[in-house]
Amino acid sequence: MATNLSIEETTNLVKQILENHNTSSQNAELVAKALVAAEVEGQKGHGLSRVASYSAQSKSGKVDGYATPEVLRVAESAIRVNAGQGFAYPAFKTAIDHLSDLSRKHGIAAAAITRSHHCGSLGYHAEMLAKKNIVALVFSNSPKAMAPWGGKEGVFGTNPIAFAAPRANSAPLVIDLSLSKVARGKVKVAHEKGEAIPEGWALDQDGNPTTNAEDAMSGTMIPMGDAKGFALVLMVEVLSAALTSSQFGFEAGSFFTAEGPSPSIGQFVIAIAPGPFSNNQFATRLETLISAILDQPGTRLPGSKKDAMREEARQNGLTINDNMMESLLALKGDS
Amino acid sequence: MATNLSIEETTNLVKQILENHNTSSQNAELVAKALVAAEVEGQKGHGLSRVASYSAQSKSGKVDGYATPEVLRVAESAIRVNAGQGFAYPAFKTAIDHLSDLSRKHGIAAAAITRSHHCGSLGYHAEMLAKKNIVALVFSNSPKAMAPWGGKEGVFGTNPIAFAAPRANSAPLVIDLSLSKVARGKVKVAHEKGEAIPEGWALDQDGNPTTNAEDAMSGTMIPMGDAKGFALVLMVEVLSAALTSSQFGFEAGSFFTAEGPSPSIGQFVIAIAPGPFSNNQFATRLETLISAILDQPGTRLPGSKKDAMREEARQNGLTINDNMMESLLALKGDS
Repeated sequence: MATNLSIEETTNLVKQILENHNTSSQNAELVAKALVAAEVEGQKGHGLSRVASYSAQSKSGKVDGYATPEVLRVAESAIRVNAGQGFAYPAFKTAIDHLSDLSRKHGIAAAAITRSHHCGSLGYHAEMLAKKNIVALVFSNSPKAMAPWGGKEGVFGTNPIAFAAPRANSAPLVIDLSLSKVARGKVKVAHEKGEAIPEGWALDQDGNPTTNAEDAMSGTMIPMGDAKGFALVLMVEVLSAALTSSQFGFEAGSFFTAEGPSPSIGQFVIAIAPGPFSNNQFATRLETLISAILDQPGTRLPGSKKDAMREEARQNGLTINDNMMESLLALKGDS
Repeated sequence: MATNLSIEETTNLVKQILENHNTSSQNAELVAKALVAAEVEGQKGHGLSRVASYSAQSKSGKVDGYATPEVLRVAESAIRVNAGQGFAYPAFKTAIDHLSDLSRKHGIAAAAITRSHHCGSLGYHAEMLAKKNIVALVFSNSPKAMAPWGGKEGVFGTNPIAFAAPRANSAPLVIDLSLSKVARGKVKVAHEKGEAIPEGWALDQDGNPTTNAEDAMSGTMIPMGDAKGFALVLMVEVLSAALTSSQFGFEAGSFFTAEGPSPSIGQFVIAIAPGPFSNNQFATRLETLISAILDQPGTRLPGSKKDAMREEARQNGLTINDNMMESLLALKGDS
């Protein structure tokens, strides 16, 4: 059994829930739009599943739902955005609005977002810049889930990288990957089912490889590409947290629980105007590259499924299962 | 049997060889320094092993050894550097000199290097910026070696990413990784020995996984992290070649043969002044992160072995085996 809601109805429902939980109307709208976009694109870990924990955090005050992001222009092509321990989405909106102007004017510009929170699907923000004809590189850290290579204690988050590039006559190319080999959610599912996990996914709390999902839950996730991946994880931690002067993964409070200190993690956003760097050849060259990929049978572009999923949701709405619908309606009544 | 030469003697020998092969003294010096640095740091694939193919290419004119990089300021924080189908090292030197000023002034700046060639160890260039107290992100493409995920024909190079960050009282943190699971050189060695290769390294020419080194030599390399790694490979190709309007991996001539067209590939260099973005907390925060890593037994920082290797070479010189020494002396005599 399930409920069918349009994108707009779902967005309004989420918005209302957040407004009932200490969140300004403007912030609630930005959060709701992003969560519904992730849900529509099949990124359920960044979609409606977050509404309960988000609203619990704004209710408890761990997230300041009324925070207004503060922008400081720290250099000609550089801004710092203080998310004020509010939701990350308003801070990203502010950063993107400024960066799209600054990068167009100066060729490249960047934003350090600090005192921030879970930002959902990182590609969502990168794509916003690409829709303004800007190439975007975005980095975020997150609460600890991975150990340094050779170690056993969590230091880093799963630290995603997102990249987006505008295309002449198509939706932007969007790349979005977290740097753990698999999402921790997969270990959780195996644990709940009492199943083993494949070797190479996780380490136990002593830093040894494990196929036992319970041991993995109290251990750490293995980076994609093993030792090479660890180097990338470290790079993302430095860019998103050291460079923005934010909390590292091992210092950050949870993205899920209503209690405890704010995660106060960081994000770093680089915006690049393709015109000047490419002598205005970017759009043409990118299509040449994409053709060389898609001309080969069996290939597809990263993120290419989401366009069809968006279209499907625009036409037919979202199918929300009964458990989720019940939870959302209970949250709507709660205040 | 082997010859022992100091760093300076080795650099002078390589410089002289290049000068004897249609290369200006200034360019020869920059190339020689970079090759010897790579050799010293154990990156032999980017070290003295390149002297023979480099000098053959400058002799034939495939590389213009007399090229002077041209800089175009295309926006306030953006430059294009035309390497003029010469060696990449002079173009990088030019880019770094400009970017260190521009990024200090504007917070962030970037360079598109075009009509370029093999740039050796990418971390070498990133570290040059870090030594000037600038955080660096560097991307390069290279001639085709990897297929798009699901495909079988080479489109992309092994597309390295380098990152460097200045440290308060230590050599910079340097991260440098190519995006193939292993270097193609490892397949070549197995092929020469008639040995099998582990599964997961390479595909044959039909796009199927292979453990046969000969089939792998005519096929493609698998990206680190498999499908996720492919997304990163594509990102690097877009940044280093589409954004710089350079040749893609599938269009580029070889880095090795003396004949054929110039590779004319591209590099993209992002320089970030850490002070303004971090509210001057970068140095302190980075050391906090590094301590959290190194406090765990069994861990080390990426690139941490090279400091000891440099010191060893400074004190005791380089040990050059007889084959290599003979080859270098023959090249010195050749002109």
